[in-house]
Amino acid sequence: MSTTSLPDLGQRAKAAARLLATLSSSAKDEALVLAADRLSARSDEILSANASDVARSVGAGASPTVVDRLRLSEARVVAMADGLRSVAMLPDPVGEVVEGHVRPNGLRVERVRVPLGVVGIIYENRPNVTADAAALCLKSGNAAMLRGSAGALESNRVIASSLREAIGKAGLPADAVLLVEDTAHETAVEFVRLRGVIDCLIPRGGPALLSMILEHATVPYVLDGDGNCHVYVDAAADLAMAERIVVNAKTQRPGVCNAAETLLVHADVANEFLPQMSRALAGVVLAADERARPLLPGSRPATEADFATEFLALELAVGVVDDLDAAISHIARFGSGHSEAIVTSDLEAATRFVRQVDAAAVLVNASTRFIDGGELGLGAEVGISTQKLHARGPMGLRELTCVKYVVYGEGQIRQ
Amino acid sequence: MSTTSLPDLGQRAKAAARLLATLSSSAKDEALVLAADRLSARSDEILSANASDVARSVGAGASPTVVDRLRLSEARVVAMADGLRSVAMLPDPVGEVVEGHVRPNGLRVERVRVPLGVVGIIYENRPNVTADAAALCLKSGNAAMLRGSAGALESNRVIASSLREAIGKAGLPADAVLLVEDTAHETAVEFVRLRGVIDCLIPRGGPALLSMILEHATVPYVLDGDGNCHVYVDAAADLAMAERIVVNAKTQRPGVCNAAETLLVHADVANEFLPQMSRALAGVVLAADERARPLLPGSRPATEADFATEFLALELAVGVVDDLDAAISHIARFGSGHSEAIVTSDLEAATRFVRQVDAAAVLVNASTRFIDGGELGLGAEVGISTQKLHARGPMGLRELTCVKYVVYGEGQIRQ
Repeated sequence: MSTTSLPDLGQRAKAAARLLATLSSSAKDEALVLAADRLSARSDEILSANASDVARSVGAGASPTVVDRLRLSEARVVAMADGLRSVAMLPDPVGEVVEGHVRPNGLRVERVRVPLGVVGIIYENRPNVTADAAALCLKSGNAAMLRGSAGALESNRVIASSLREAIGKAGLPADAVLLVEDTAHETAVEFVRLRGVIDCLIPRGGPALLSMILEHATVPYVLDGDGNCHVYVDAAADLAMAERIVVNAKTQRPGVCNAAETLLVHADVANEFLPQMSRALAGVVLAADERARPLLPGSRPATEADFATEFLALELAVGVVDDLDAAISHIARFGSGHSEAIVTSDLEAATRFVRQVDAAAVLVNASTRFIDGGELGLGAEVGISTQKLHARGPMGLRELTCVKYVVYGEGQIRQ
Repeated sequence: MSTTSLPDLGQRAKAAARLLATLSSSAKDEALVLAADRLSARSDEILSANASDVARSVGAGASPTVVDRLRLSEARVVAMADGLRSVAMLPDPVGEVVEGHVRPNGLRVERVRVPLGVVGIIYENRPNVTADAAALCLKSGNAAMLRGSAGALESNRVIASSLREAIGKAGLPADAVLLVEDTAHETAVEFVRLRGVIDCLIPRGGPALLSMILEHATVPYVLDGDGNCHVYVDAAADLAMAERIVVNAKTQRPGVCNAAETLLVHADVANEFLPQMSRALAGVVLAADERARPLLPGSRPATEADFATEFLALELAVGVVDDLDAAISHIARFGSGHSEAIVTSDLEAATRFVRQVDAAAVLVNASTRFIDGGELGLGAEVGISTQKLHARGPMGLRELTCVKYVVYGEGQIRQ
């Protein structure tokens, strides 16, 4: 696999995709379970390859965060294998008849869910993405072309080889999972320009990767963007509930995209609520606007940049707004279109917030942390889309499919 | 409007989109009907602007096809106005609850259809696109940024101004329709890079426009690609039905994307069917492969290029294949993913063709000409997508929307 050119790999992926598209769910599920077993069986080999990746990264001066994302443990390999088994248990989206009707001329029109074809994943570090993404692609009948980073190459190689081995053993095309082992930057650019090969590209990485894709990609892509999420505490909020939601949204897992980054508080309740939050958010760095600051001892003055920042840390921007409209405008200006919450007991405020806030998800009286595939009932997810086309919000198996028209006639011609 | 910079226009479109997203269907429908009336009332002005565009194009040596696409008549203006009235009568997709369920923790999860926001249309010649596209965008709650060609500028100006006038009179934001009057090539490039402004770009034009977009666009787009459509006549076909379908698919309107460009015939019936088609397709230029040629007097030898060409004319490539698999492989190689038909009375052949052919639409025993928005019951269409993400096949009002998650809780936090 290592010496193959990218276009050759692409043709192999396309050939595999054609076979995968027609497989039964049970054939795919069996391969996933075998793949899980294979990962467990080769756990030592995976961990030893990973140790070598980690040593190389540490030697190259990688940051502790990068190394942490790269590092596997026995427990993480078990989690990867369990992930494959969970995907095997999800319902197969392929073949679903999304809608159907009969035209006046007797034509029977159906829209049927089918795999996308070849899904390209370009990602950084985390070797578990190799297994997770491959599993979701396989289950949804797609071939996966995986382009991981140089830092995780040895880990990715063993993981991909385990998956391929199991898939082949199950009688499916091993090329359902193809790892691009050439990790040069030019290859990444070439990868995102495999038009006619990659039907959908899903990047998992930081801003540099996203802007490379915006500049160079000619293949269709779905972006998993930032989450600059807001919680707006309305004048009519239950303040005890608001406190629970804000604390949960900010601190339950601050490093993820659905964590809250800004708290907006209606002026009528700021005097009561902000001092209460100052205590509840002890340990969180607060960047407060002029009106919030006097009510938040120890806070620093918030700049515009603070309101635009996805901290991904125990840090929160806080602003006081005059009314619902001001909150909605603030979110329209600074939000990234991920998840936005209102806490209120006022029906009209809730309704207007839901209607007017433009984001993948809006929540009423609930923590932004619920916006992920697992919590919304999708099972596993391949990312959370902040774009509007094709997929918006958590992307599960369904978002790895598309719909084709199937039209049945008895010789109809157009007049 | 003419002196405004593109980013300023973009901000105006965004502001209009925010208002449009919350309008009732009846408010939008009323504006559409007023706009139709306004187009009729200003018909003379539109025709005189158009006469000037036509004169300029003829002077510049434009081809008769280009001039024909540009030229309006009283009847065409009436058709434009009628088009607006038809769109007013279509059901509004906005607000549809696509699905909903309650999570075990009591969260109520809904997916609700909402407008995309700002839709950019970049198009060539045809001034009727100005009215058609604006109407579909308005009805689906989107602001339309229209970037037409230099050749149609005067026509587009009067049409856009009529629409804006009516929309404003209806009490809606006139900026729901914005015409980009700067027709320089650099402006087109700037237009397709208005990331953060244009939520969806839909190009209507030829290969040069599409490749400009692939190279430069940073905004999300849906491509309306070529239609290299096939009709495969199986061994088990009713040959009288096959003849009707092939003649209809090729000749009923050869210049459109859902017309057939290649006929594939199973070897078992070629001796009978091809001579029959030779008579039925009198007047159509036939490019035949080695096995078809002797059966098609007057045909020329087909090259690979013929099988890859969307003729859009009374010209048809013809090939003989050994079996269904060969037909499917041929289509996989040369098809453009638009509309592919099989004529057969064999259930297994129909089922395999439907399952294995990868296209926006597959048809059994019906003409490819049925694959358009009107014939499939979508009402008007803004194009036919040959890509797989977001929209596949005819794009109607629904394809001008996206779906957002709305989550209602009673204070739930994540554990």
